[in-house]
Amino acid sequence: MKSDIEIAQGAKMQPIVNIAEKLGLNEDDIELYGKYKCKISLDVMDKTSKKDGKLVLVTAINPTPAGEGKSTVTVGLSQALCRLNKNSVVAMREPSLGPVFGVKGGAAGGGYAQVVPMEDINLHFTGDMHAITTANNLLSAAIDNHIHQGNQLRIDARRILFKRVMDMNDRALRQVVVGMGGKPNGFLREDGFMITVASEIMAILCLAKDLKDLKERMGNILVAYNLDGEPVYAKDIQVQGAMALLMKDAIKPNLVQTLENTPAIIHGGPFANIAHGCNSIIATKMALKLGDIVVTEAGFGADLGAEKFFDIKCRYAGLNPDCVVLVATIRALKHHGGASKADLSAENLECLSKGLDNLGKHIENVNKYGVPLVVAINRFLSDTEEEIKLIENYCKEKNVKVALSDVWAKGGEGGIELANEVINILDNEVSDFKVLYKVEDKVTDKITKIAQEIYGARGVNFTPQAINQIKELERINCDELPICMAKTQYSLSDNPNLLGKASNFDITVREVRVSKGAGFIVVLTGDIMTMPGLPKVPAANRMDILDDGEIVGLF
Amino acid sequence: MKSDIEIAQGAKMQPIVNIAEKLGLNEDDIELYGKYKCKISLDVMDKTSKKDGKLVLVTAINPTPAGEGKSTVTVGLSQALCRLNKNSVVAMREPSLGPVFGVKGGAAGGGYAQVVPMEDINLHFTGDMHAITTANNLLSAAIDNHIHQGNQLRIDARRILFKRVMDMNDRALRQVVVGMGGKPNGFLREDGFMITVASEIMAILCLAKDLKDLKERMGNILVAYNLDGEPVYAKDIQVQGAMALLMKDAIKPNLVQTLENTPAIIHGGPFANIAHGCNSIIATKMALKLGDIVVTEAGFGADLGAEKFFDIKCRYAGLNPDCVVLVATIRALKHHGGASKADLSAENLECLSKGLDNLGKHIENVNKYGVPLVVAINRFLSDTEEEIKLIENYCKEKNVKVALSDVWAKGGEGGIELANEVINILDNEVSDFKVLYKVEDKVTDKITKIAQEIYGARGVNFTPQAINQIKELERINCDELPICMAKTQYSLSDNPNLLGKASNFDITVREVRVSKGAGFIVVLTGDIMTMPGLPKVPAANRMDILDDGEIVGLF
Repeated sequence: MKSDIEIAQGAKMQPIVNIAEKLGLNEDDIELYGKYKCKISLDVMDKTSKKDGKLVLVTAINPTPAGEGKSTVTVGLSQALCRLNKNSVVAMREPSLGPVFGVKGGAAGGGYAQVVPMEDINLHFTGDMHAITTANNLLSAAIDNHIHQGNQLRIDARRILFKRVMDMNDRALRQVVVGMGGKPNGFLREDGFMITVASEIMAILCLAKDLKDLKERMGNILVAYNLDGEPVYAKDIQVQGAMALLMKDAIKPNLVQTLENTPAIIHGGPFANIAHGCNSIIATKMALKLGDIVVTEAGFGADLGAEKFFDIKCRYAGLNPDCVVLVATIRALKHHGGASKADLSAENLECLSKGLDNLGKHIENVNKYGVPLVVAINRFLSDTEEEIKLIENYCKEKNVKVALSDVWAKGGEGGIELANEVINILDNEVSDFKVLYKVEDKVTDKITKIAQEIYGARGVNFTPQAINQIKELERINCDELPICMAKTQYSLSDNPNLLGKASNFDITVREVRVSKGAGFIVVLTGDIMTMPGLPKVPAANRMDILDDGEIVGLF
Repeated sequence: MKSDIEIAQGAKMQPIVNIAEKLGLNEDDIELYGKYKCKISLDVMDKTSKKDGKLVLVTAINPTPAGEGKSTVTVGLSQALCRLNKNSVVAMREPSLGPVFGVKGGAAGGGYAQVVPMEDINLHFTGDMHAITTANNLLSAAIDNHIHQGNQLRIDARRILFKRVMDMNDRALRQVVVGMGGKPNGFLREDGFMITVASEIMAILCLAKDLKDLKERMGNILVAYNLDGEPVYAKDIQVQGAMALLMKDAIKPNLVQTLENTPAIIHGGPFANIAHGCNSIIATKMALKLGDIVVTEAGFGADLGAEKFFDIKCRYAGLNPDCVVLVATIRALKHHGGASKADLSAENLECLSKGLDNLGKHIENVNKYGVPLVVAINRFLSDTEEEIKLIENYCKEKNVKVALSDVWAKGGEGGIELANEVINILDNEVSDFKVLYKVEDKVTDKITKIAQEIYGARGVNFTPQAINQIKELERINCDELPICMAKTQYSLSDNPNLLGKASNFDITVREVRVSKGAGFIVVLTGDIMTMPGLPKVPAANRMDILDDGEIVGLF
């Protein structure tokens, strides 16, 4: 079996100008970054008169150690649609260097359903992450400099909310003390680094309409409180112009291709916990402008990813998703049904049957948003005919479409069945998309609605701290925003050990923060890791570039 | 008077493919980064049979607040050479974002002698700085992770030499404590951030022959000592492969153009104090391969910049510089002669006459290296005829060529006189280049030779700490390397207030470190700032990108 990078390196890539040309883009519409990557000018949005394409969201059941292959299905489905002569475009997130060097080694699909050039996409790509890092850290440096230079805004150094970032898994930077060394080095204070993808700047990039909107949102970041307890925004520090300038290229979506030369727009990659976990609105809108069927994905399972895709991204962008693909694997469903990780390869209809409850709840949830749905069974070699039949029957009983997908092993060819179901939906079913709550609702009501309707919770416990924080948001007029839930992805509940369809549980809200610039309220239901660490043997240790330029160790 | 950015934005740039074509490069030899920037494939070095061009170094007297305009002369001279139908190429350093956002606002020449697109060059350019930052910080994260995961190498957390970096002026990060928060966040220790251009990785990039050499040098970075006092190198941490992989594009030189479409290779920008302050060897060699006359520069004044250019860069690269242009301004010379900053515009032959001693010492120094020389008077409006005549006579008496340069105001046209003198030297004089010392000499002897012969010091005082550190370098076999002096740039001595031709002084060596990977011994003669801070009103505060995309506030 070939590794992902071996498959990717064997790909026959087309020059990206050819891919762009297929989408009706000429040389003035793009900026090349080497031969196989380019950025698309935002002017294209106004220039093209083509009717917007249809939007397909790929989401999944709650993730398990067994893996679901959501990105792989996203890429493979698009490849399959192209094989069926549809003008399909993939819209995906950019990988962060942190996980690449940490455990994952790469994140651009897998097997015969990958985006390429995977080496570049997984490393610096077109520099978007670095632009975000720099814009973020310029603001941080400007905050500390403001305090050092006289602190005219009377910033309370104990209440600085905005953190520095680095695109790296580096646990030693989670909690730091800065400004040591006396007067020349500024005032001593506690600080911390997050990984770049957790930066509010990343969330802003992904929710901004255009450069003007981006700058405005960056100016609206709540960075600190002053000594009177009043909010201090980034615009008070007066570097939002320089920050926007740093983002002038990062705001343009990146065009690459899949292994089968399907156009892929890869842009933005916000964390799926303290942010909303979807690629940029600009990328999705650009893809809709250029393609007839856009396949996109959202982070984690449908309870987190799809919910935020609908209630945050689609709300802000005015998008109307036309179809949802809900990915499940038989192995993961068995795990949800109680099978241990070691036993997932053995047929186990009982565990599978129990685990289907998890799938069922996500089906129910997607229905609440009014978007037509197909379940994609992402096939593994160990799946048995009986197991497949069991899922198919389950879906039929629920009157839900289901299709097998084998794109990891077979590329687009392995996604034809799924692609046909998607086309069937797009041609014959009408989406009646609606968001779950109104932004004008009370914060506690919005949270409770998500917890009860999407997670299936009995209710929500707000800690005293959370209650105070919600009051504070109301006081500073930051309460009428969508909710961005930060919850474990492994369970419908806030307890990662409750697999399957959790029931009889309450959600505990421990902390509530506002990302005023991005435009959402972050609701934390547990400890949220915003700076991962490296494992005992980091993926980086296996990576190398040989003397002849061959790259090894990216997966 | 137009600002630099207004002039730059008015430039008629040619597509970079045209510039590349002038140099004999076809589309497969380059990788485009947009329409006006590209990277040059290293394969070109082996492919081209053209004889190497001649190498001209632009250096200067000791800098003063009045400014010398070394980069401007470098660009302008190359433009002038092209006007005289010479195939001239500029080889320069890349600017760091720190100074761009801090005081300078930009660094790509000035007036009508600039490299363009200046906005991109001054911002992310082709991402080289970000690649260095990432490679550096991956190593740092891996070191802390190694300790956290059991510390098999028994690294002494009190003796970690390798620091994290950020491409930002951020004084709060100079001295930090990392690893706070208990066990999940690793071991608590003191650390600090340098600005990216001060990273040893940057010095390595600039001294590496090729990717293999780069990887080897990165593996040789002395990162720490273990608990037995033995050195720990980066290769012991086993991420040099991933670090080299991160540098796979950064190692390729960048091609842009001047305002007059002269090819400019801009690559690498190491600090001129704790590193050697010259663009990469790869860039200079590439420029020599492609051009007939390569104009390059070195950081600070000739006592630091030219000395390190000769004794470190030329030594490692086997380069034979053919001509030195020594830049001086009448204003700066008057300052060296005692005129106060406020009075520099008034004619003052007495101060000028005294200040010429500084120029004289640098002339003497360049002669020691055996390289023919021309003095360039970088003209200001306030210069009087009498003042110019005074310098010209001074140079004539010393039998040194001298030429006026007015490239800031007039572009290449203003550099014709200088260009003709340079051509005259290249055509009629033979360089007899030799380095100042042997690497095999004792460390103290090498330092003393530089101090006495170049700075004009009586002798050198080594602090007890420095003596111990030199012994330590001998013990770990790190002593037979070139010396990289870190000294104030404002004086020939180590006292910034001793202007003109300082005399009757000793140099005090306070600290000696090794950059084993880069391949030099850093000798510190005072406090060295490796992380600048932002001023009261940072240049960033003036920068903006308007809704129509127009960029303002970069100088």
